[in-house]
Amino acid sequence: MSDRTPPARYDDLAAVYINCTLKPRPELSHTELLGEASMQIMREQGVRVTSIRAVDHDIAPGVQPDMTEHGFARDDWPAIQRQVLDADILVLMTPIWLGEKSSVATRVIERLYGWSGELNDDGQYDYYGRVGGCLVTGNEDGIKHVAMNVLYSLQHLGYTIPPQADAGWIGEAGPGPSYGDELDDGSRAGLDNEFTQKNTTFMTWNLLHLARLLKDAGGIPAHGNQRTAWQKGERFGFHNPEYR
Amino acid sequence: MSDRTPPARYDDLAAVYINCTLKPRPELSHTELLGEASMQIMREQGVRVTSIRAVDHDIAPGVQPDMTEHGFARDDWPAIQRQVLDADILVLMTPIWLGEKSSVATRVIERLYGWSGELNDDGQYDYYGRVGGCLVTGNEDGIKHVAMNVLYSLQHLGYTIPPQADAGWIGEAGPGPSYGDELDDGSRAGLDNEFTQKNTTFMTWNLLHLARLLKDAGGIPAHGNQRTAWQKGERFGFHNPEYR
Amino acid sequence: MSDRTPPARYDDLAAVYINCTLKPRPELSHTELLGEASMQIMREQGVRVTSIRAVDHDIAPGVQPDMTEHGFARDDWPAIQRQVLDADILVLMTPIWLGEKSSVATRVIERLYGWSGELNDDGQYDYYGRVGGCLVTGNEDGIKHVAMNVLYSLQHLGYTIPPQADAGWIGEAGPGPSYGDELDDGSRAGLDNEFTQKNTTFMTWNLLHLARLLKDAGGIPAHGNQRTAWQKGERFGFHNPEYR
Amino acid sequence: MSDRTPPARYDDLAAVYINCTLKPRPELSHTELLGEASMQIMREQGVRVTSIRAVDHDIAPGVQPDMTEHGFARDDWPAIQRQVLDADILVLMTPIWLGEKSSVATRVIERLYGWSGELNDDGQYDYYGRVGGCLVTGNEDGIKHVAMNVLYSLQHLGYTIPPQADAGWIGEAGPGPSYGDELDDGSRAGLDNEFTQKNTTFMTWNLLHLARLLKDAGGIPAHGNQRTAWQKGERFGFHNPEYR
Repeated sequence: MSDRTPPARYDDLAAVYINCTLKPRPELSHTELLGEASMQIMREQGVRVTSIRAVDHDIAPGVQPDMTEHGFARDDWPAIQRQVLDADILVLMTPIWLGEKSSVATRVIERLYGWSGELNDDGQYDYYGRVGGCLVTGNEDGIKHVAMNVLYSLQHLGYTIPPQADAGWIGEAGPGPSYGDELDDGSRAGLDNEFTQKNTTFMTWNLLHLARLLKDAGGIPAHGNQRTAWQKGERFGFHNPEYR
Repeated sequence: MSDRTPPARYDDLAAVYINCTLKPRPELSHTELLGEASMQIMREQGVRVTSIRAVDHDIAPGVQPDMTEHGFARDDWPAIQRQVLDADILVLMTPIWLGEKSSVATRVIERLYGWSGELNDDGQYDYYGRVGGCLVTGNEDGIKHVAMNVLYSLQHLGYTIPPQADAGWIGEAGPGPSYGDELDDGSRAGLDNEFTQKNTTFMTWNLLHLARLLKDAGGIPAHGNQRTAWQKGERFGFHNPEYR
Repeated sequence: MSDRTPPARYDDLAAVYINCTLKPRPELSHTELLGEASMQIMREQGVRVTSIRAVDHDIAPGVQPDMTEHGFARDDWPAIQRQVLDADILVLMTPIWLGEKSSVATRVIERLYGWSGELNDDGQYDYYGRVGGCLVTGNEDGIKHVAMNVLYSLQHLGYTIPPQADAGWIGEAGPGPSYGDELDDGSRAGLDNEFTQKNTTFMTWNLLHLARLLKDAGGIPAHGNQRTAWQKGERFGFHNPEYR
Repeated sequence: MSDRTPPARYDDLAAVYINCTLKPRPELSHTELLGEASMQIMREQGVRVTSIRAVDHDIAPGVQPDMTEHGFARDDWPAIQRQVLDADILVLMTPIWLGEKSSVATRVIERLYGWSGELNDDGQYDYYGRVGGCLVTGNEDGIKHVAMNVLYSLQHLGYTIPPQADAGWIGEAGPGPSYGDELDDGSRAGLDNEFTQKNTTFMTWNLLHLARLLKDAGGIPAHGNQRTAWQKGERFGFHNPEYR
């Protein structure tokens, strides 16, 4: 059955999943549970998957590539940054607190942003040619609010966002179980939610498809989007609008 | 100079720009002025560009494809929907009011959403294979807030979002001139803002690049993202995460 | 039992609830159902409650008080504006579509904003002395995203926002029943959600308490917040920060 | 001139300003510069003002009152929490990065949220009776996006939000000077922006007015908003809406 045969190979691709839970290992992260489902699909296709729990690292505040050069005694970010740059795919994962992504997620985005001054060999922003997605869980409300900020940040940095590049789970309004929590009847909250299953699957495959396309194309074509060329005065057809 | 020669032809592509200003024609729309700069780049590459001012049309409230089938005497949306579906590229343009996109932009997104139940021949959401961007102007504050919602909505519907797919102009905090307004010194507000020029150019070219890539690839590969296959029970490698 | 006796009378207060559903009457609005619970508490206290379904009115696009003076043949907004100004309390009610408030809600906020140039007798923004809240329903995700925008807009216009001034209901992630829809077991979705019941009750009473306080105080004291005095040069103790 | 005489005394009030800049002392914080202008108005009225730079403290991730009870070796938050609870007024101050509040601001809100399970003597959420505001600076775009989240979070926790309770400064779209930076002509960016001056002044006075009103009223009246009474079954007039 043709649906079951992927249209390409993906075993030359690498993906980094950064889980922005507030809980250090070995505490259970509900968000990581959902992330595992996505990572598993990628691993089955031979993708090299790296899973990082950001809160386990000492990530300094700031928007410079290495904050030890700006007064901080320690900064674990540069090592994570290298992993991000070695990967074709980045998935940010975060819980929801008060309807918002976690402070750890905000920190990770600030540090990714700290690299946005760097360019690739074509003079494009260094993140070009990569694809990004996001996974969100909470016990109530906020997937879309969180995802719109995370995906916006990624595309602003240079990531391509495939269709339906977010997925998540929340329960009905009000306090309640988190994703994967055992319920009174012995089942696990959210695990049988077909909407979450479907969105997670679609996100994962769309990340693979776009990463494949971009890798085969050698990245985003270098025309009309190179900061170096712009700074030299090239305008790529831009003319100021005429006022009428 | 290689930078000046585009890496491909784009004259088989079509783009729709929907301006969501609150002002009917022939009133001047500051947002349209910025849009013209982007459209001009596309037209120079032979792209068939359609420019729609949504407020000039009678777009009924609702989330069904044709609201005349749901009690409304008139609904101009279905004709716009056809233009959107005939195009490879969609750019939503909106002013900012109280930090938010316009009510016309919200209406347009609701109606685009009304089509999200429709599938293409591969069983994917009908918007798959298309790319989306957004342009925003205001006299103060809100480009990113507006863009994160617009771009999120587009990717949720099935659009691919290229890198840096938004651009805009706002002035310093506080009331002041809108984009293109004549200033005391005879110049025009925002027109010389190089950041706005650059972002508009990069957005436009990245839309072209991704539209080209997707068109040449025959759309997003149909695997792992087909609602029909999912409904028939195909899971594309998704397994529930194991609780540990 | 002291808890059961309200600490004041409220029968001199007036409240306006504007329902921003996309569905005209007589169609059922799930959001209105929740609104009724709040209105009922107010009515029992003698508050004069007016319920408006915005989509039943022809509200022109724009940000001027009366758009018939700006080229529109019809504009039902000025009559609604008068009702809003006659009331001590304003509650905006909206469904969620694609994680966002409705286009009708956005339109209502734009038109409220169109009055923000008007001042009261003390030279304060005309909305001062009033209190605002919001009610939101959807079948999944978005109460907080919607409420943060609605409440922000209201406070920006001059409304005071009491504690916990929003309430709502959403179901588990994914499509599903809306508030009040009959379920297979004959019960109604959301009606027994104690979190929604509690938040609706707390919001309603906090609106009453703050409206009472502000009315008894004769509004927000007129010092440090009068646009007229500011324009005449009064600075109320503001000094530019010293740069150190 | 009556405008110059405040309508009350405020020297029994206390305010805490938490600056959520990413930069530790003694680095200059542009946001703090604007905060100083607001604090100065309060100090002139005898208000006891405490200024905290959050990044100088080791605030553990999590949503419990004291994270040293949950595996963290150190947590400076409980001392800050006490200061917040000792104050009538809370102002959160944050820079903008990628259109968003800082990770430090997100952390502070998470920790404030960690106290939301605590009740006052009337059975209300412990933050009741207090007022909140926010100050935001950046070099471009995002005041309203940031403020709507910060103010929403504060009202959700139990704070009352006065009219126009946010202020800030941003420059024109694109990179540029931050608030207070010296410009080529020797002036300081933003310092002469009358909109920023006015909003900062109005915010400050409206915080004072509402704090005064609430203190004189003994807090928010305890009826219809007490979690303890609700848990005992009191419903304060709430009835489920009748389905029609």
